[in-house]
Amino acid sequence: MTIRYPNGKKYKSSAEKKTAPKQKDYAFSNRGMTLEEDLNATNQFYLQKGIAVIHKKPTPVQIVQVDYPKRSAAVIKEAYFKQASTTDYNGVYKGRYIDFEAKETRYKTSFPLKNFHAHQIEHIRRVLAQDGIAFVILRFSALEEIYFLEGKHLLQFWDRMEKGGRKSIKKTEIEELGHFIPLGYQPRIDYIKIIDSLYHLT
Amino acid sequence: MTIRYPNGKKYKSSAEKKTAPKQKDYAFSNRGMTLEEDLNATNQFYLQKGIAVIHKKPTPVQIVQVDYPKRSAAVIKEAYFKQASTTDYNGVYKGRYIDFEAKETRYKTSFPLKNFHAHQIEHIRRVLAQDGIAFVILRFSALEEIYFLEGKHLLQFWDRMEKGGRKSIKKTEIEELGHFIPLGYQPRIDYIKIIDSLYHLT
Repeated sequence: MTIRYPNGKKYKSSAEKKTAPKQKDYAFSNRGMTLEEDLNATNQFYLQKGIAVIHKKPTPVQIVQVDYPKRSAAVIKEAYFKQASTTDYNGVYKGRYIDFEAKETRYKTSFPLKNFHAHQIEHIRRVLAQDGIAFVILRFSALEEIYFLEGKHLLQFWDRMEKGGRKSIKKTEIEELGHFIPLGYQPRIDYIKIIDSLYHLT
Repeated sequence: MTIRYPNGKKYKSSAEKKTAPKQKDYAFSNRGMTLEEDLNATNQFYLQKGIAVIHKKPTPVQIVQVDYPKRSAAVIKEAYFKQASTTDYNGVYKGRYIDFEAKETRYKTSFPLKNFHAHQIEHIRRVLAQDGIAFVILRFSALEEIYFLEGKHLLQFWDRMEKGGRKSIKKTEIEELGHFIPLGYQPRIDYIKIIDSLYHLT
């Protein structure tokens, strides 16, 4: 079991740990790491250039016990990871609400839907109903390929699973319906470019 | 010193504690509590009715040490409150990006600007530059009065202070430029109504 904090590395929530079998846990242990760093750098670039204001939400934590030592900062002595009720990233671009989740897999031919939680899917559904721009950024880490998939398509695949269909999205489906994002230097993952072309915001 | 967790009560970050003198600390100790609960209930109402999707961001925490006991959830054993780099609430309403901060004061004739941090002001500036809808909800707790003040006006008062002017907003200024929100039952603080009238989104 690896402790990845401090340094802004991603945790898996306790709930994730519980639902994922031990072996698969290992296979997925790297997900979100490089991707999160790349997205943070991308958002920082957008922010500094005045292109968009998009932030990652803090990791939700249930705080149970706090000490207040004299003359120093409060110390949280007992707390637990909570499952996020929304997606991780949101913000504003040209007046529009932007909302997304980023996930990675080590699989090469499909993207497992268990990377998402039911309430995240529900959140995406609600955002789309409010005419927000919701999507997911999917990384095939073994292939070093990143795709932008619109929320409406993710919902289709989720609903297919709910109706007894496959529990993953085929990579060919992502290639067909999604949008390949080449890894760049600055910004590293230029998802705003995809939004521009999809929503004609330029 | 009161420990207000667990139960979703609001903390003051360590940075806040440091900047605020002891006595004033006491005067402000109640700020954000009832207001936060009322806003959470309001947002929950909007969410359930499909009116808007607006959430409070989790309290940002810097995690230092985590234990992974066998057969139970990971326990955070050492962590510290971080100062938020954005405002507390954001989301989407009719496609538009909504962003706000909520603060209260026990003063009756003015609202101290030290309730806001420089980077929150900077965030509001950036959101407005992206054509987002940014505002603050100000509560005069001793008077039980709540006001909606547009981000652009908050920025004016902040800039006035930066130029050597007064360190607070006069209540009469808030009454003139802001919008009184009567406390309701459901929703308790109907700020969407103000947004509708200000931005003609109906």
